[in-house]
Amino acid sequence: MQAATVSTSSAPLNELPPWCATLQEAKARKGLSFEQIAKELGRNEIWVASVFLAQAKPTPADIEALEKVLGLESNALAAQAGSHWWPERGIGPAVPTDPLLYRLYEGVLVYGHPIKAVIHEKFGDGIMSMIDCKVDVQRKADPKGDRVVLTFDGKFLPYVPW
Amino acid sequence: MQAATVSTSSAPLNELPPWCATLQEAKARKGLSFEQIAKELGRNEIWVASVFLAQAKPTPADIEALEKVLGLESNALAAQAGSHWWPERGIGPAVPTDPLLYRLYEGVLVYGHPIKAVIHEKFGDGIMSMIDCKVDVQRKADPKGDRVVLTFDGKFLPYVPW
Amino acid sequence: MQAATVSTSSAPLNELPPWCATLQEAKARKGLSFEQIAKELGRNEIWVASVFLAQAKPTPADIEALEKVLGLESNALAAQAGSHWWPERGIGPAVPTDPLLYRLYEGVLVYGHPIKAVIHEKFGDGIMSMIDCKVDVQRKADPKGDRVVLTFDGKFLPYVPW
Amino acid sequence: MQAATVSTSSAPLNELPPWCATLQEAKARKGLSFEQIAKELGRNEIWVASVFLAQAKPTPADIEALEKVLGLESNALAAQAGSHWWPERGIGPAVPTDPLLYRLYEGVLVYGHPIKAVIHEKFGDGIMSMIDCKVDVQRKADPKGDRVVLTFDGKFLPYVPW
Amino acid sequence: MQAATVSTSSAPLNELPPWCATLQEAKARKGLSFEQIAKELGRNEIWVASVFLAQAKPTPADIEALEKVLGLESNALAAQAGSHWWPERGIGPAVPTDPLLYRLYEGVLVYGHPIKAVIHEKFGDGIMSMIDCKVDVQRKADPKGDRVVLTFDGKFLPYVPW
Amino acid sequence: MQAATVSTSSAPLNELPPWCATLQEAKARKGLSFEQIAKELGRNEIWVASVFLAQAKPTPADIEALEKVLGLESNALAAQAGSHWWPERGIGPAVPTDPLLYRLYEGVLVYGHPIKAVIHEKFGDGIMSMIDCKVDVQRKADPKGDRVVLTFDGKFLPYVPW
Amino acid sequence: MQAATVSTSSAPLNELPPWCATLQEAKARKGLSFEQIAKELGRNEIWVASVFLAQAKPTPADIEALEKVLGLESNALAAQAGSHWWPERGIGPAVPTDPLLYRLYEGVLVYGHPIKAVIHEKFGDGIMSMIDCKVDVQRKADPKGDRVVLTFDGKFLPYVPW
Amino acid sequence: MQAATVSTSSAPLNELPPWCATLQEAKARKGLSFEQIAKELGRNEIWVASVFLAQAKPTPADIEALEKVLGLESNALAAQAGSHWWPERGIGPAVPTDPLLYRLYEGVLVYGHPIKAVIHEKFGDGIMSMIDCKVDVQRKADPKGDRVVLTFDGKFLPYVPW
Amino acid sequence: MQAATVSTSSAPLNELPPWCATLQEAKARKGLSFEQIAKELGRNEIWVASVFLAQAKPTPADIEALEKVLGLESNALAAQAGSHWWPERGIGPAVPTDPLLYRLYEGVLVYGHPIKAVIHEKFGDGIMSMIDCKVDVQRKADPKGDRVVLTFDGKFLPYVPW
Amino acid sequence: MQAATVSTSSAPLNELPPWCATLQEAKARKGLSFEQIAKELGRNEIWVASVFLAQAKPTPADIEALEKVLGLESNALAAQAGSHWWPERGIGPAVPTDPLLYRLYEGVLVYGHPIKAVIHEKFGDGIMSMIDCKVDVQRKADPKGDRVVLTFDGKFLPYVPW
Repeated sequence: MQAATVSTSSAPLNELPPWCATLQEAKARKGLSFEQIAKELGRNEIWVASVFLAQAKPTPADIEALEKVLGLESNALAAQAGSHWWPERGIGPAVPTDPLLYRLYEGVLVYGHPIKAVIHEKFGDGIMSMIDCKVDVQRKADPKGDRVVLTFDGKFLPYVPW
Repeated sequence: MQAATVSTSSAPLNELPPWCATLQEAKARKGLSFEQIAKELGRNEIWVASVFLAQAKPTPADIEALEKVLGLESNALAAQAGSHWWPERGIGPAVPTDPLLYRLYEGVLVYGHPIKAVIHEKFGDGIMSMIDCKVDVQRKADPKGDRVVLTFDGKFLPYVPW
Repeated sequence: MQAATVSTSSAPLNELPPWCATLQEAKARKGLSFEQIAKELGRNEIWVASVFLAQAKPTPADIEALEKVLGLESNALAAQAGSHWWPERGIGPAVPTDPLLYRLYEGVLVYGHPIKAVIHEKFGDGIMSMIDCKVDVQRKADPKGDRVVLTFDGKFLPYVPW
Repeated sequence: MQAATVSTSSAPLNELPPWCATLQEAKARKGLSFEQIAKELGRNEIWVASVFLAQAKPTPADIEALEKVLGLESNALAAQAGSHWWPERGIGPAVPTDPLLYRLYEGVLVYGHPIKAVIHEKFGDGIMSMIDCKVDVQRKADPKGDRVVLTFDGKFLPYVPW
Repeated sequence: MQAATVSTSSAPLNELPPWCATLQEAKARKGLSFEQIAKELGRNEIWVASVFLAQAKPTPADIEALEKVLGLESNALAAQAGSHWWPERGIGPAVPTDPLLYRLYEGVLVYGHPIKAVIHEKFGDGIMSMIDCKVDVQRKADPKGDRVVLTFDGKFLPYVPW
Repeated sequence: MQAATVSTSSAPLNELPPWCATLQEAKARKGLSFEQIAKELGRNEIWVASVFLAQAKPTPADIEALEKVLGLESNALAAQAGSHWWPERGIGPAVPTDPLLYRLYEGVLVYGHPIKAVIHEKFGDGIMSMIDCKVDVQRKADPKGDRVVLTFDGKFLPYVPW
Repeated sequence: MQAATVSTSSAPLNELPPWCATLQEAKARKGLSFEQIAKELGRNEIWVASVFLAQAKPTPADIEALEKVLGLESNALAAQAGSHWWPERGIGPAVPTDPLLYRLYEGVLVYGHPIKAVIHEKFGDGIMSMIDCKVDVQRKADPKGDRVVLTFDGKFLPYVPW
Repeated sequence: MQAATVSTSSAPLNELPPWCATLQEAKARKGLSFEQIAKELGRNEIWVASVFLAQAKPTPADIEALEKVLGLESNALAAQAGSHWWPERGIGPAVPTDPLLYRLYEGVLVYGHPIKAVIHEKFGDGIMSMIDCKVDVQRKADPKGDRVVLTFDGKFLPYVPW
Repeated sequence: MQAATVSTSSAPLNELPPWCATLQEAKARKGLSFEQIAKELGRNEIWVASVFLAQAKPTPADIEALEKVLGLESNALAAQAGSHWWPERGIGPAVPTDPLLYRLYEGVLVYGHPIKAVIHEKFGDGIMSMIDCKVDVQRKADPKGDRVVLTFDGKFLPYVPW
Repeated sequence: MQAATVSTSSAPLNELPPWCATLQEAKARKGLSFEQIAKELGRNEIWVASVFLAQAKPTPADIEALEKVLGLESNALAAQAGSHWWPERGIGPAVPTDPLLYRLYEGVLVYGHPIKAVIHEKFGDGIMSMIDCKVDVQRKADPKGDRVVLTFDGKFLPYVPW
């Protein structure tokens, strides 16, 4: 068990409910990765990280599994993030300052309109759903430097005149 | 040849150089898709759409090929977007209003921190490059409704203490 | 009685008076829905949820009924949200980040001007009141997926020259 | 035929393509209402007004019908808003200044969180789609002053863990 | 008849329809005051100035009277600001920079909450309508320096639970 | 004596000094109105409400009278808001979200330029002072619904070339 | 007579009426300084520069003198900036980007509160008028580098309870 | 010794280090003015007020003198604002809301460009330093009302090509 | 002589005076680099690029040399950017969107406070001048990829108490 | 050992984790400079200051060395800023208010586009990395006043079409 404390006085935890820090501390003390926890829950690790950051709502089974894998007391998480809790999604400033987050934002600024143009041509008038969407991150080995492969797999939703 | 005019008085063309509208009108009159043009150039269609929106710099060979496939006069594009022209990247408002673009932005707001958490664990302290990054859009058939598969394939860049 | 704690450190409770969390905790522990509480008070559930979020002012009778149905001590709510308390309406950032809230905002961005154009034609120069306005949410069954029917029923207020 | 000119130098037409003013002038000269045009097209009048404001994409049949009912030359609209044109949705400032539009925005600021709370209870974690959504405005007679009944009828989209 | 030209390249005319400058030029050339024009129309001069700034909708009779008193050609105003035109209200930046306008804004910043507190006590939960509201400016002689008496006379609109 | 607590965790008290909540609680417990307190002090009730919200500086006599009428200990207010304290005026966000406050702001957005135009004509180049200005709210009975009469009576200050 | 053209496509002239560029061109061609023009008008040069930037209203005598000293046709300025024209004061972005302007703004950010504290002590509760205020710039010789002496000489306006 | 407490929950103290309130309380209890303290330190009172607001860095001698004149324990200030402390300059919102501060800001908005124009003519291309700058406030008696004379005496810094 | 046109409809030229595009077109047609032009003028190439972007004021000798090396008519630049013209410095949005520019901004966001901490320790309380500052860009060969060496060499300006 | 306390209530520490204040207090008490600490760690002092401000991630060896040189208990820092902690980079407001920081920002506003123009010419289309970038500050003696030499040495990253 490693010593690990997680401060709630700085971003992003300063705008999240307190159980987020609890989860992160437990994870750090157990020395677990999101990948390991995700396997225990049968989920993708991005989704699990979203729960840790209050950006996804865990099912009762997820909550029970999290309490178990993280060694929390029974009901410790359920009492706070149970059926009465709903995510208030969207964290951080409107324009991210953290370089990793900013690069994703830059992807929207620079490639957003080209992506829109191509989606229009491939699908017609509509959008890629960010609700019915699976997000995934993979590490791809590359001799010139390994690469991050970030995928959004979202349902196309057409605009229909009425 | 189809009748097609492209107005430069509304977003995003109102903030772009005039040759962007020229390219779009020529493409519309020829009835070509980005996919078809991309094949002619040997490029990905997102990259081609980025050129059409002044978000990527075409090589002299790209310019020549574009002039040809779009039926423009020789040098018509080179004189405007040639070696003396450089992209001023990033278009549209800081928070997009168009729903398709906003969904991408929402992906950053909601899943940005989870993506950051997972990249940290998989790669360490650093970022996914948005410069050495290939963006791709595919249509995936699905009986419940076809899906957009949007991929960012970017080099991991580590922070190195100095 | 279910274990339930409600944190005031994250949105929207971090900008509301403390009795809002008290109400939400009591409701969660009692396992009551807004619909059930609304029936007890003889009110619409949206209005009741507005009281829970300090966006509407309850009458003394509403307060008494709330204290009763939620099992609060007598006067516990009256002392805080009684006749001396007035709502400070409007919560959250100017542009919502939560996807559910953002979609409502998007409705204003995309359909606001069309709604204005049609109201002008149907009623003349004026507005739909958001003060004398009843808001309602219904669930409509649909084989392709149930639908939310959100209705604003507001008095038309004409501009009158003077 | 009434004399009618529509200026493109003020909001919202100053940020729209020029054919929007053409449509509005033709409509004014013909003395037609959105309701009448909607009947010709077999559409809801809010959707028709959305086309007039470049917020919806008309089908080829819609375009042909619009050219006809408005007395435009054949292909006059198709050449500008035809298959090569895609809406750039979302107009006006982030916080509307026009009182009619602001009231809709105020509805989101004041009742947005209560609506979210009730949708969560009635449907679970998810959103009301603003893509698969029908917007409607009706005039309801009322002896104390007629009322605007504004309805958003949108598909519920659940968040699904992955 | 005085020589007078009115530029549309600076605030606030740069965001208004062109007939606003036409009205102002005609008024200046005729050497008329808002007070004189208001008497001809049987209106308050603030309302008349609101029409000159596209912030109020004149009736057909107002338009005819304006064309006459300003010496405009018949229908010159009607063709532009007639029944097909609707005000897009709210001009200038969110925080005014002009000192006269800023002082009004400062009145809201400094005395807004006190005004709210007193209205609540005198009327209960509700607002002063800015739609059913008469605005008036008078000059009050005062030996220490004349005073502006600015009055908003607006209907109280109560919030009613539903 | 009524039970009454005033929370400092929400707007506008969260940005004010703590004695503002003390004054409001004392006033609520005594069941006094601003009008009654104003009579005791020989002041207008808007000015008194401004003191309660830290937007005006009370004289030593005002402070003594307030301590007395509210039943505070001698010097309790003087020690906090006495001669060493100066108001930091202007509260709330740049664009108000509370509907009552927003309507006042809307008055500036919509009628600000017309008011400016009329003041220019009646007084010449200058402003209405918001420092030497008396603000007043009256209730005017009206069979169609009582009206709020809000008056700003401010000294005209001319610009003088130098 | 020097060749001199003044572009209106960049700040600050792009937000000013066109006669501002006319004045600046005439001044440049005549090779006059603000100091020289100010002497002709019997004004301070800052005030004269304010007229050139549409931030002050010239009297008819000022206008006549300006037309003369700048060699403009009679009435050329009067027709545009005469009795029917009123300044719309306040130019540039809310936070200046030009370093000279920014330093003035920085003076407010850094020394604004100290200035407020000292004015309170020397004068009591009130402000320094920016309407009844003379602004002056002098060059003070200094062996370590000449200094700018910028003075605001403004009337103190006390807050008076009412 | 007067009773005086200074709250740190409102602007500007809520964004300053805690010793700022300590200094202000000590000053109030001692009944000292900035002018008196400045004499003890041999400094200008604006500079002293800047130290009280954490906008200037006191020397060790200043700190010792402040501890003495304010009756603080030896080292009480040094331990907090000593050699290890550096000012983080610039307080309050980007656009001030307090009327006294706003007037200074308005001076920049309205007279900033005229000041720039005159400095350019008197000195050439460059700025007035806000680092090597002495700020001073004097009270000037005037029968029409005393005046504030605010002076910025700053070194001119020329731009030099390289 | 190469064909080259430079559009003024997109950033940053859309906010600059028209002679900036003239200079850029002439430079492109001549096939000159900033380095070559800088050598002709005896200046650093960053300073020359600053003149091309209206961010630095050229001397009469610089103007003459520019007219010559770029093949412009005599006085063509002097008439526009001569002694009567002054830079309005600072271009682009407050937060840059172009990735190259954003990285510089990110340098301030991430390393700004560390740079401040080290400058304080090395120099005491003060700043690095951005007026008396030489900016330089060099290409440094590196087997892992060449590097940009960007240097700001600015005079330290100490704060001096007064 | 010097007495030194570091407040966390003001910028930038109010947005950082609590161990940042711990490090700064320990450093002040020990009387160490960043330069001295950097030597102990074998790092550049800017990088060390970045760790003190939570803008860089220390390695386990760095943490151990820091605990030692600062006299912290073993593991005191590791438990908080160890392997489970990741920087959330980017601090302070979008536009800095502190003059030292603002000057860096001004460098981007004024010289950003010229730097971009020269990098394009020297390297082609791409950016200077702010990830693979070494930042350095040196003091350069100069008889006219010592100078700050601030260097960014970052890898050039080219855009490559795909």
